Amino acid sequence: MAAKPCIPKGTRDFSPAEMAKRNYIFDTIRSVYHLYGFRQIETPAMEMLSTLMGKYGEEGDKLLFKIQNSGDYFSGLTDEELLSRNASKLACKFCEKGLRYDLTVPFARYVVMHREELTFPFKRYQIQPVWRADRPQKGRYREFYQCDADVVGSDSLLNEVELMQIVDTVFSRFGIRVCIKINNRKILTGMAEIIGEADRIVDITVAIDKLDKIGLDNVNAELRDKGISEEAIAKLQPIILLNGTNEEKLATLRQVLADSATGLKGVEETEFILSTLAGLGLKNELELDLTLARGLNYYTGAIFEVKALDVQIGSITGGGRYDNLTGVFGMAGVSGVGISFGADRIFDVLNQLDLYPKEAVNGTQLLFINFGEREAAFSMQVLVKARMAGIRAELYPDCCKMKKQMSYANANGVPYVALVGENEINEGKVTLKNMETGEQRLVAPDELIAELKK
Amino acid sequence: MAAKPCIPKGTRDFSPAEMAKRNYIFDTIRSVYHLYGFRQIETPAMEMLSTLMGKYGEEGDKLLFKIQNSGDYFSGLTDEELLSRNASKLACKFCEKGLRYDLTVPFARYVVMHREELTFPFKRYQIQPVWRADRPQKGRYREFYQCDADVVGSDSLLNEVELMQIVDTVFSRFGIRVCIKINNRKILTGMAEIIGEADRIVDITVAIDKLDKIGLDNVNAELRDKGISEEAIAKLQPIILLNGTNEEKLATLRQVLADSATGLKGVEETEFILSTLAGLGLKNELELDLTLARGLNYYTGAIFEVKALDVQIGSITGGGRYDNLTGVFGMAGVSGVGISFGADRIFDVLNQLDLYPKEAVNGTQLLFINFGEREAAFSMQVLVKARMAGIRAELYPDCCKMKKQMSYANANGVPYVALVGENEINEGKVTLKNMETGEQRLVAPDELIAELKK
Repeated sequence: MAAKPCIPKGTRDFSPAEMAKRNYIFDTIRSVYHLYGFRQIETPAMEMLSTLMGKYGEEGDKLLFKIQNSGDYFSGLTDEELLSRNASKLACKFCEKGLRYDLTVPFARYVVMHREELTFPFKRYQIQPVWRADRPQKGRYREFYQCDADVVGSDSLLNEVELMQIVDTVFSRFGIRVCIKINNRKILTGMAEIIGEADRIVDITVAIDKLDKIGLDNVNAELRDKGISEEAIAKLQPIILLNGTNEEKLATLRQVLADSATGLKGVEETEFILSTLAGLGLKNELELDLTLARGLNYYTGAIFEVKALDVQIGSITGGGRYDNLTGVFGMAGVSGVGISFGADRIFDVLNQLDLYPKEAVNGTQLLFINFGEREAAFSMQVLVKARMAGIRAELYPDCCKMKKQMSYANANGVPYVALVGENEINEGKVTLKNMETGEQRLVAPDELIAELKK
Repeated sequence: MAAKPCIPKGTRDFSPAEMAKRNYIFDTIRSVYHLYGFRQIETPAMEMLSTLMGKYGEEGDKLLFKIQNSGDYFSGLTDEELLSRNASKLACKFCEKGLRYDLTVPFARYVVMHREELTFPFKRYQIQPVWRADRPQKGRYREFYQCDADVVGSDSLLNEVELMQIVDTVFSRFGIRVCIKINNRKILTGMAEIIGEADRIVDITVAIDKLDKIGLDNVNAELRDKGISEEAIAKLQPIILLNGTNEEKLATLRQVLADSATGLKGVEETEFILSTLAGLGLKNELELDLTLARGLNYYTGAIFEVKALDVQIGSITGGGRYDNLTGVFGMAGVSGVGISFGADRIFDVLNQLDLYPKEAVNGTQLLFINFGEREAAFSMQVLVKARMAGIRAELYPDCCKMKKQMSYANANGVPYVALVGENEINEGKVTLKNMETGEQRLVAPDELIAELKK
């Protein structure tokens, strides 16, 4: 007998029930992206390794899934090279393609390749899987979907504003209460400038982030440990203790960063984004959070991150503004701003809070029990009408024991069952059973449709 | 400067306009699958090579994209093995995973792995890309989507009937006129039996298929060339000349195949499928076509294929009944029947016949021109309302020359543009311009929404 099959570690099958939920997530995000004028693109799963390599750091290069060249991939290789067994060097000889690692690099490649056809600003979204040869662990997979939206070719802060509106709308539709955290790389740069510790920003934000947990004295001690000067620590005090409303925080920052043109620009940008959003009726809270420093080397302006309020889980959405998306492919001057929804974590949050709407699980609404050829023929006539009315309906294909057919209805969560016997055929009606209440009644096809459409 | 980036040959980027069309195709197929109670699954892009190898013939094994193992893929390989440069043998040492080649083998693997959770009959659909290292050519890609639906665990011919209803409904919704061709492997087996040439079925159907083009004498000559005996050719005459309605064809076949139990079973099955469908109001023609022999080694009962009537193109959908889907993975007795829509060809047919509905291209409906900060702020208030009403709307993010903003509207096919200046702000209204007619009028936000919702 053949060995029991398995799937590669870190990958997943999605069952019908999981797919219904995932589609609900993707469809919700997609429809909001459409409302804001974002347009979908798709790129191939495989990209040239020359496109991917060197874009994600040395570690990232190792985590790329590489695809072996077809045909004779040994051609041009000397015995010596082969026997060197240099796995990473030879990988580039054996392979010229790899699976995409994220959606940003393929998007940059897309913009460069299609620059002549595109009208800027270009607002694109993309929902596709990515692959990373990371060590699999709870909540971390080797294949997972990203749902990105970016606007490129516009410096306007209104793009940041719209992306925050999108985040707010998406999570409102999900019914997930969130806090949208916002920061600005220029504020962080300003902080580094005024304390003369430009390259220590990450150490500083990591320490500041611990204030609630370990208290001011310990934060300062940690900064000292990291080699930050006493003078710099003194200057940082108002920032470490920054609290109050976003307006109060911005007022403090404006004073502290008075000597940094870049820092003040960051304050001004943040102020514009927050004050514009204040008039637009967002349902979720926005919070200026200086400890937010994600992808520091990548972002150049606003930085955002979304935290669920009612579930303990990491960031469920993030993004920010970047310069020079396409410079690495020889096309300068394309800046942009984007967000990425974390579909897997949103899936978990919706599960934990039991927030999936009933309609999202779009299974069969009505099952006809099969009592034989004649009954089936009658049922199929009713089925044609029901489906024309948009009702998702099935006839059990085999005339087997009723118990088995009812188990099928139960296993698939079918809410209504139709029974057609000789009586029903003679009357031209159907016995409709509500599987939840157990209630049964004889109805004409039109009544059945009306009941199901309720 | 960096080299201009490219994508692997045989793969494609899909632009927003193409994606809108593709989504229309997939959404249409998906919604019909739902109407018939099919439930979606997804499987990983990567499968173990042990799952994939040997399932598609020797040629297929070569066409699998293989993924190099992470880490030291040389381990355990002797110098001799390496220097053998045996590309296909070493591929299996370097690689344990491959990209899926179709959706059928992963589905079989899924059924086996999840047998305990599944309720049979299991009606699944799956819409995902597959990858084949085929030589790319016009209309043949190395990455393309398949849209499969299968029912497994039921022998009932009502499944065949429903699949034909699905095909009919899908193409009716597309507005593509088709001929649904149907055949049965058992009829072909019966033919082989009565003429004693069991292994020559393909030669025979290929010859018969040429009747219209080359005439009876030449068909018979070709059969003779292929080494079919005179006696067999004589017996085949009624089949070669088979014509008339499906009923007439079946009546002839019943006589010719009288001595083959298998053949008669095939006739009976086909008769049941056709006569059941006759009462269900299909919009497209069904034709019994004995030359249909696709995947002969795979199918065991009904075989179907769909041809577009108004475009010269190969089959745009196909399928059939098979036994023993999962036997290769050690689970016997699972038979099924399935169909697969050819999304790329349907895309071409819809393009050639210009059948995409306007609503399918779901771009932005309304663009607000940006005349400055104050105007933008007013526009954003109207935008909030418009989007709440479900209107896909944008504000041009930058306050730049109006000409540039209007070009953006034109390039993106936006049908309405909203102009907001000082007058409009004072009146609390918006000037709405219909981009097709050029007509402009001053409207209140509610009127704007009503106009756009029309």
